[in-house]
Order: sequence, then C-alpha cells, then structure tokens
Amino acid sequence: MTAFDFYMPTQVFGGENCLARHFEAVAALGKRCLVVTGKNGAKQSGALEDIQALCAAHGIQTAVFDGICANPLLSDCVAAAKAAQDRRVQFVVGIGGGSVMDAAKVIAWLAANDAADTEALYARTLPHLPLPCVLIGTTAGTGSEVTAVSVLTEDASGRKKSVTDARCYAKYVFADARYTHSMSLETTVSTALDALCHAAEGYLSPTCGQASAAFAEQAFALLGEGFAALLQGENKREAMLYGSLWAGLVINQTGTAFPHPMGYILTEEYGVPHGLATAVFLPALLERARQYCPERLQRLQETFGGAALLEQVTQRYIHLDVAMTVQQVEQNRARLTGCKHYQKTPGGFSAQQALALLQRLFVREEI
Amino acid sequence: MTAFDFYMPTQVFGGENCLARHFEAVAALGKRCLVVTGKNGAKQSGALEDIQALCAAHGIQTAVFDGICANPLLSDCVAAAKAAQDRRVQFVVGIGGGSVMDAAKVIAWLAANDAADTEALYARTLPHLPLPCVLIGTTAGTGSEVTAVSVLTEDASGRKKSVTDARCYAKYVFADARYTHSMSLETTVSTALDALCHAAEGYLSPTCGQASAAFAEQAFALLGEGFAALLQGENKREAMLYGSLWAGLVINQTGTAFPHPMGYILTEEYGVPHGLATAVFLPALLERARQYCPERLQRLQETFGGAALLEQVTQRYIHLDVAMTVQQVEQNRARLTGCKHYQKTPGGFSAQQALALLQRLFVREEI
Repeated sequence: MTAFDFYMPTQVFGGENCLARHFEAVAALGKRCLVVTGKNGAKQSGALEDIQALCAAHGIQTAVFDGICANPLLSDCVAAAKAAQDRRVQFVVGIGGGSVMDAAKVIAWLAANDAADTEALYARTLPHLPLPCVLIGTTAGTGSEVTAVSVLTEDASGRKKSVTDARCYAKYVFADARYTHSMSLETTVSTALDALCHAAEGYLSPTCGQASAAFAEQAFALLGEGFAALLQGENKREAMLYGSLWAGLVINQTGTAFPHPMGYILTEEYGVPHGLATAVFLPALLERARQYCPERLQRLQETFGGAALLEQVTQRYIHLDVAMTVQQVEQNRARLTGCKHYQKTPGGFSAQQALALLQRLFVREEI
Repeated sequence: MTAFDFYMPTQVFGGENCLARHFEAVAALGKRCLVVTGKNGAKQSGALEDIQALCAAHGIQTAVFDGICANPLLSDCVAAAKAAQDRRVQFVVGIGGGSVMDAAKVIAWLAANDAADTEALYARTLPHLPLPCVLIGTTAGTGSEVTAVSVLTEDASGRKKSVTDARCYAKYVFADARYTHSMSLETTVSTALDALCHAAEGYLSPTCGQASAAFAEQAFALLGEGFAALLQGENKREAMLYGSLWAGLVINQTGTAFPHPMGYILTEEYGVPHGLATAVFLPALLERARQYCPERLQRLQETFGGAALLEQVTQRYIHLDVAMTVQQVEQNRARLTGCKHYQKTPGGFSAQQALALLQRLFVREEI
C-alpha cells in the first residue's frame, strides 16, 4: 500500500453563488485589494462584476490590473505587484484561467517584498510572506487553485519557468461553475485536456501515493463524464470544473511527467494552447503505462468511463498541425536533458526518448 | 452535483518511518517541546522512544506529560498547558489515540494563552494562536489528526464537550502504521468502528459534499478491507489507519450525525469505549438511510465490500451489554433535545426518536 501523504492548506468554497455566500471570509482580509485579470475572461464570466459589487457593499476598495496575458510574463507580474504596493493593498484577487491564477500567486508574493527582485523570487528567498491571495477560476483545467505552483514566461528568453513554494498557496478559492460558462468550446476542450493530463501524469507516476491516486480517480470519473457529454454536444461545466480541481490536487502532490515540459516547447515556439500542447504527448504516456503499469492504466480507463471513451477523446480532440525539421527537434536537446519530470514517468524517460517522440510526432518523412 | 468544498491545512506525512524521514519539518519548530501522552500507548508503540531519540539528535529538549486519560479531562489539559508554559516550550507533540490527540490540540492553544482560562477556550476567544502541534496516532479510528475538533470531559459534570476552531488544526501529522501495532484487538475493533461511524455519518448526511463523499468512499473501501481481514483473524493495520484518516477528512467537513452524541451517554455513564458506544447506533442510522437515501446506502455497502460484509461486522463486533430503566432513558431528554447533529441525519431526527431508540436498545421488557 502506498503511503498517505497530504498537504493543501487552501480553503475551497464550491457551488453556485459560493462567492456571495462566503464573502465574509474575503472581507476579513482587509479594506484594499488588487484584482488581477486578463483582458476578457473575468468580465465575460461575470466574476469581476460580482467581486466589485461585493467589495463595494463591504467597503473594500478595489483596483483592477487587467494586463495578464496567456503564458503570463514575469514583467507583468512585477508591474502588477508594484501597482499593489502603490495602492497599499492588503490582499490580491485573481480572476481567470491558469495564467491569471499563476500570476496572482506570484504577484501576492512580490507585492509583500521588493517587487522587482525576481531573482529572489526564483531562488525563493523573498523574506516576507505573500499577501493573502483569493482565486476565482473561469476555466476548468489548470488546477492552479489548489497548487503552490506558478508557471511564468521569462521576458528575455520566452521560456516558461516555474516557481513552487508552499507559502504561495491561495488562501481562499471560489469554484463556481457559472463563471466557466463564458469559455469557448476550444478553450473548454484545451483546458479539460490539461486537467486530464494532470490526473494521468500524476496517477501513472511511480511516486503517486494513496491520496493522490484517490484524487485522480475522482478526476477521471468527472472528466470522463464531461468529455462524454462534449462528444454529444453538451457541456457539463460543473463536472469539468470539479474534475480539474481533483486533478490539481493530484499534481499538487505528484508533480507532472514528461508531457508537461514537452508541451511547453509547443506553446513557446508554436503558440499551441497549453492544454492541447500537453495532451498531444498523452498517448505516448499511456503507451508507456501499458508497458510498465498495465493494471494502473486499466483502472484509469475504467474510472474514465472505458478505454473506448478515452480513445474517442483522443481521436476527436488531440490533433495538432505542427511540423518540425530534424534540426528543429535537435535544438531542444539541451532543455530536454536531465529533466526532473522523467522520474515521474512509468519506466523512466530520457532526453533521447523525448527527442525521438518529437521526431515521430512532428517531423514529416522526406520522400 | 453537490458542491466541492474543502479545508484541511494540516500536512500529513505517511508511511513507514515517516517521522524520521521528515523530521526536519519538526526540528524547524523550535528547541523545546512538550510531548503529551497517555500512560502506555506512546511507550508501547515505540513512537515515544523514536521522538525522544530524534529530538535528542536535533538538540531539541523534550518534557513528557503522560497524564492524559481516555476521555480526557479539561483539568489535565490545563495542567499540561501550564507545564508547557513553565518549560517555555515552542511546540507540542501528541502521541496516542484520539484522547491524547484531542488533548494535545487544546493544550497547544491553552499554552499560548492564559492556560486556566477554560471559559475563553470554550468561547473560542483565546487571543493568541496555538503553539504548533504535531500529532502521531497510535490507534486507527479517531481521525483527530485531520480535524480541528477536540472532545474533552468537563471535570465537574463528567460531560463531554467539544471545542472546534480552525486555528486548532495540527501543523504536522505522522501516520505510520507501525505505531498502531501495540493496540489490543479490542481497541483495534472499537477504534475501527469509530472510523466506520465517521465515514457513514458523514456520507449519509444531507450536507455531504463532493469532496467528503469521495473521502468517505475511500474510507469504506479501506475499512472494509481491514474488517474483512479481522474477521479472518488477520490485521491490516495500514488499511485501518489510512481508512481512519479518510474518515477523519469526512467528518472534518460534514460533522457527525446522532450516533456520536448518543454514544457519549454510553461512554460517560456506562464506561463504554467511544467507538463501540457510537457504533451501537450505526444500525439505526443505516435503517434511516434505507428509508431516506437508499441509493446512497447501497453505494456505501458496495464500497465497503458488500452488504453481507457490513452485516457480518455488525453481528460480530457491535454488541453491548448495557441495561437501562425507562427512568434512566428519560433522564437524557434534556441533553437529547435540539441536538445540532440531528440535521446531519437522513430524514432528520428528534429527541423523541432518540429516546425511543435508547429504549428499544437498552430497556429490557418487563414480563
């Protein structure tokens, strides 16, 4: 029996209208807050309007920083943290998908310190604890709500680089599926694929413990329900949202396997949305599971709703029109060498295998 | 779909040797600690020796307060808190079953405040945060490791009274099944029944949410495995321990239904161990579930390993030789009136029903 390990100190409030029902908790955090959003999601979801109305009713001043883009830039986080300091805010609210939530966690930490000291951020040596951070998800995929991880893009290199620190868990999360209604079908699919990868990468990892495995099985059941509905043209947003939270609880403990770091390449260099960019490597992960932990794979398929459903999802949603040359594949050798995610892969993984996989998937054979 | 609510900020380390493997976390809490135990469990389990050796190796001074009895007295908690203050300890370690762990959480809070101010304790107005509290369970039942609840016995009245405050969660929990090996068979059964009641009372409650239901199903599967082994004369201690943690995560969110408060009567007035005292009301709870939420009951039985196994467990382990007169039953009317646990019962519950149940179970018919 694997051990029972667990740590996730965030308080999650779920269900319709949870923000209004539990707003007292937020109101106790202070009288000035910075609301961090992207350009559209927070507004379209209705969550921004709700938080502004609730803050106004409770005498809380809000300032909005709406400059977070997909694959958030480190420089934007610094700018937002400075805005937070200028306004002497006492807490940060992030409303959006994974990019905004990842950014909000970092902004809350930088705002309590020298906001420009990104070196100390990455070294995790910022001396002061983060401001309390409240997260409201408008997509169903990232799981950022329940992890201490933020993936940011370095401005100079354009590379994704993550900050993980147990001090960075959000204080409160509000999981209201109504706020995910404004997602496009494309975003719904891509973010749900991200959640599916989280659950699968964690569940199949040799390091997966008792609690993570249980969380993953919850995720598979809900995401399976959500995908089965999608294939029928319906959208079960609550199943997808809660599925993504369970999946977040999985990677919170296990971390991710090779699909995540390999997906970063497709996002950075080919502009592929994160979920799809990751999921394109999912079949290869499942193939390794078939070889190294077939019973685990079978249980995954069962809890998802059957191997046939998983295959349908793969056939229908996991397509990518990216072409690389042999040289372009080879350019990734350094970054794919010695990757810590390989030990989370059943049977292990290597740079050589990663490069071969890129080649198999994206290099058109020359005739 | 029920909402996804969650809050349990304790960090749980599980598995063999987890205390030694993760002792750095404890060592960072300070240089002086109070170790709270009962008379025997901590010693017999080997956990006391382990913590003393690890503390010595890390230059941490330990003082032992071994005066916590079953159904811990409030006065003993005050005495221990004063000892903690005298020694200026920086954290508290509780090693034992539910009684010791419940006591340790309260001792850690009193030690950081006026230790004698039990009125403020029950009013939850103690001004300072508790000292960090570390818990090491030596039984598999209570779930106290992962809740913010402490059930104490008031010295004057002999009545159990609980303190629940989100500040009182333990900081670290070490769940090593080796430390439960010293339990007698009787304690193994009674504590496992307690865990089963936690999972069942929470799962069948109309307030049970998405996360709690998932935790309960984990608990049923593991406890079912444990009880099936017990019926064969084996002891799967890890299944029972982890099952009890999942069940603790359930009541942490849902609270308990009528079996718990009714069981207190049997413990206080007839000296029945807590687990058995509670479980004697479990069949009546399941009966109500059959009437008000039959599908939920069926799922409970399935995840436990079948209705037949649950029936075998009931037949084999849930016996109580207590006799009451009609007058003795009636004396409980006041305390059984307006009990907040009734709303956690499928179909509701009332004082009249509680008294009728006591009468049915414990009053011998006069011939």
